[in-house]
Order: sequence, then C-alpha cells, then structure tokens
Amino acid sequence: MLDVCLLGTAGMMPLPDRWLTSMMARYNGTSLIIDCGEGTQIAMKEVGWSPKPVDVLLITHFHADHISGLPGLLLTMGNAEKKSPLTIVGPKGIKRVCESLRVVAPEIPFEIEYIELSEHDVELELRGFMIHAFRVKHNVPCYGYSISIPRAGKFDVEKAKSANIPLKCWNLLQKGNTVSVDGLTYTPDMVMGPPRKGIKVTYCTDSRPVDAIWQAAKGSDLFICEGMYGEPEKKVKARQFKHMTFYEAAELGKKADVDEMWLTHFSPSLVAPKRYMKDVNEIFSKVSLGFDGRMKTIDFIDE
Amino acid sequence: MLDVCLLGTAGMMPLPDRWLTSMMARYNGTSLIIDCGEGTQIAMKEVGWSPKPVDVLLITHFHADHISGLPGLLLTMGNAEKKSPLTIVGPKGIKRVCESLRVVAPEIPFEIEYIELSEHDVELELRGFMIHAFRVKHNVPCYGYSISIPRAGKFDVEKAKSANIPLKCWNLLQKGNTVSVDGLTYTPDMVMGPPRKGIKVTYCTDSRPVDAIWQAAKGSDLFICEGMYGEPEKKVKARQFKHMTFYEAAELGKKADVDEMWLTHFSPSLVAPKRYMKDVNEIFSKVSLGFDGRMKTIDFIDE
Repeated sequence: MLDVCLLGTAGMMPLPDRWLTSMMARYNGTSLIIDCGEGTQIAMKEVGWSPKPVDVLLITHFHADHISGLPGLLLTMGNAEKKSPLTIVGPKGIKRVCESLRVVAPEIPFEIEYIELSEHDVELELRGFMIHAFRVKHNVPCYGYSISIPRAGKFDVEKAKSANIPLKCWNLLQKGNTVSVDGLTYTPDMVMGPPRKGIKVTYCTDSRPVDAIWQAAKGSDLFICEGMYGEPEKKVKARQFKHMTFYEAAELGKKADVDEMWLTHFSPSLVAPKRYMKDVNEIFSKVSLGFDGRMKTIDFIDE
Repeated sequence: MLDVCLLGTAGMMPLPDRWLTSMMARYNGTSLIIDCGEGTQIAMKEVGWSPKPVDVLLITHFHADHISGLPGLLLTMGNAEKKSPLTIVGPKGIKRVCESLRVVAPEIPFEIEYIELSEHDVELELRGFMIHAFRVKHNVPCYGYSISIPRAGKFDVEKAKSANIPLKCWNLLQKGNTVSVDGLTYTPDMVMGPPRKGIKVTYCTDSRPVDAIWQAAKGSDLFICEGMYGEPEKKVKARQFKHMTFYEAAELGKKADVDEMWLTHFSPSLVAPKRYMKDVNEIFSKVSLGFDGRMKTIDFIDE
C-alpha cells in the first residue's frame, strides 16, 4: 500500500491559496518527497504528514520553485528528531546546490547522502522504493521520476510439491531466501509464481511533452504531470518557456495509458483551471486537476 | 505617513496559520522589509503589498527562519519587473550568505548592494528611511533596527521677515535649499523652526532583553518586539535559547516608554498567546499581540 499526496500545485511562485508543486509518498514506514519549493514544509504540516520519516528527496531541477524550501525543511526534519540518513537525488550539481542553500542550515542531526544524475535513464533502489529517473526537456537539466513498489509472485504449492521441496523450506523460500538441505540447494523461483503487478506512480514537471515521459509513465497507477497553461492559445508560451499545456499533458497520459492522471504546476495566471477540463477530457478521460493536499492510497491488486 | 505591516509572527518555523516574523514599511513610494523567512513573499501577497517598490531589506541575523525566503522573494520582485536597486543590510557576512542562497536565483533584473554591519551601533540613511541598527544579544550576531522618518520644522514667517530674507527665496529655503541673491547667502535654518517630531518604529528579534533594545526603542510610535514564550515557566528556556518571554519584552517596552508595542516571533508550541496578556499588561499597558497582517498607519503629529 502506497499513500500519495500532492502537497502543492503552483508553478513559478507560491500563492496564498496554492503551495508550490511537490509530491510526497509513504510506504512501509518510510517517506519520499519529490521537490521542495518555498513552503513545502508548511504544506506537509497542513496535511498532517510527518517530515521525520522522509528518507528520500528527489529533485527534478534547480529552479527555485522546486528546491528553495530545502533549508527550512531540513531544519524542521531535525526539530522532529529525525536521525536516519536522507538521500537527495537530483541532476548533476545537486550536492553543490544543496550545500550552498545550507548556508543557513549548517547543523542537521542526520546525514545527507547525494546521488547525482547525469545519464538519461537511471534506476535506483532506495529504502524499498524502485526509482526510475528519466531526463525530460526543460531549459535546464531536469528529470521526471517513476516510483515503483514491486510485488513478488504467489507461493505455488503445486510447483513446490512437484519439485519435491521439503516442507520445512517453504516459508524461507517464500520470503526470498535460498536454502540448502541435505546437500541440495533450493531457490525461491522453484516455489514462487511470476511477479505480480506492483504499484507505480510517475511524476513529471517541468518539461515539454517528449516521448521519454509517456514511455516512463506506461503502466502507472497514477501519473502526476505538469500542465502550466489551460488556455489553448498559450501553446506558444509553453513552447517558449519549455512547459506544457493541459492538452499536451493529456496526450502524454493517453499514450502512456495510465490508470489515473492529475495535472499540476499551474501558472500563477491560471485562476480557473476547471474551465478547460471538458476539452482536456476529450483527449484523455482519466485526467483530472490536481489540488493542494489531494491524496490517494494505492493498494496492490488482488488477482 | 508611514504604513507598517507585520507580515508574520512565527518563530523557528512557519506554520499553516502563522507566517514567519517579518515587517514591511511603506513610505513615500518606496518600501522596506525586515527579515524574509520561508513564505514571506506569500504573506506579502496575502496582504496585497507589492514586492516591486522594496528597495531596502534589513536582515536581523542568519538563522533560516529570518532569511531563507530570500531567493523566492528576489525572483518574485524580478517577475514584478522591479528595476531599481535593492540594498540589503545585515550582520557581517551578509553578502556571502545572500550570494550563497542565490545559487537558485542567479539572474535578477536589478542590482543588489550590500551593507555589512560590524559596529554595535550603525546609522544609515537609505531611500528616505533613517535607520539605526543596534546590536542585540542572540546566539549568533544579531541586530535590531529603528526606522525613523525625520520631519523638518515649520516655516517661521516672523523669523524670515526679521532676517530680511527676500520673499522670492522663501519657497526654496523651505524646501531645504541654500540660496544666494545679490551677493548674500541664505540658509534654511534662517527661516525654519526647530525640527518637529518625526515617525519612529523599532523592530527587535531574536534577543535576550538587553539595555541596547529599550534605549534604541525610546521615542518609538511603534515597537515590534519578540516574545517567544508566554508561559512564565519558560523563562529558563528563553535564557537558554537567547530569546525573551512576553514579560521580559513588556519590561523593555515600559522602559522605552513607547506609544504602542506589538509582540511577535511566537514559539510553535505557543498556541494560545492571549491567555498570558492580562499579566503582561500589568507590566506595560500598551503592549498587545501581533498577528499576521496587522497594519498601522503612522502620521506625523500636528503640533
């Protein structure tokens, strides 16, 4: 079970009624955040999610609206008595940028590890989260992220019996261990069915609508994607500033064939995003507007 | 006429219903801010005061809750098409700290000038504001600030007549010019009465209650002062973390004999500051609780 919360939906600058775009996920006692602009720690407090178990912070790019809340967030984590290390992942230069911002937050009671991305596609496993970082197309180096929780196959009793696996080994094998008994070695694949569908959430902002995005988002239970502009005539502006319109985002969701899609990272000039959704849903019916504090719990599907 | 707004009243960390402590003042088309923690730009937007005419930024000290909103504020000023230079004043190291935070806001369409304070008392004149920076007592170098708007004396017709000042010089002299006519030189003091009471606002956070504070605040129309704790038993904590209780702050206001005093910089643990005000007002009747967005317009007094 993975809990997801869209902490904010603003792009460019925080507004009195719209926090900057950021996503938080909770799984198995640990938490992950993507981006932390000015005010993200307040948004987190508003929804009542603790900063203490945040062990992974993924940064899409170094524009202030995606990272300037870092010093305050680190201090608030420290005040919450976080002790476990924090891994910060981001484009090349992430350590330099974070350490520079830490000029006002030099003393933190937990370790920070940095992972710098430079390839177009990077796979990471951090605290139980399988993470795929994929390069997108903004005016500075920028990454989208897919977060997956894999799920093992079911224990196959018939398979175990027909392979003559001793009963006492079943439990250990089901838990993923390799077991040796009486000179014979048994591996988990001898008793387990094929891996089942896990959970997958994809997050992408800021970018033009490139193929890498829908390719990475394929199979997602939830796809959170920027939609900077709702007005169709702002496609020119979207191209100029390397963002997307709602319609361009919806096309990506359709191609990725995701189960559900939320739009976010709205321009400060976008005051009534709802008015564009009829046309947007004609492109892809499963897309809806993100809003601050929007949550979703995604369960493994029983087969 | 000086407009003052207390943008926030939180200490340590911003909360969903309490912005970090910051003060803004508007005078004669220009604006000044003291401190800009995370979210100050949002608080400013909430009260509807523009970031564009902000020409002076005074920083009390380098703890994140007083300065971490800088990159976002600078970018928002830039988006508001500010072109006039910004002067940032703060303790020694202010340039290094601000430039380090600017790693995520490197491109700003206006100049930034820095003034570093190292003496215990510094007098500055910036954009019509007379500023007195005074060193206070925190666990890092920290300054309080008095902002004054001086007021010239009245034009004294009898004085001008008895000194035989030509009538055509009166207007120029009243405006502060020195005038030479027919080989004779006339100066403003020959026609003006003594300077009248101006406007003075004093702001102080974070500090223990030291004499420098009430001495600097003397004669203030408004004194905004930290009161981190309302609970009398937290005096020990106040001493330990170099802050003040409401009662210690009230004693300062009483000694300074100010016209009005607001408390601010409340601890996140302080949820009902009102309950302590009866006792606080027994020390000094003119002190009241600051609140986010509290405004006051201070006029010159007609004599």
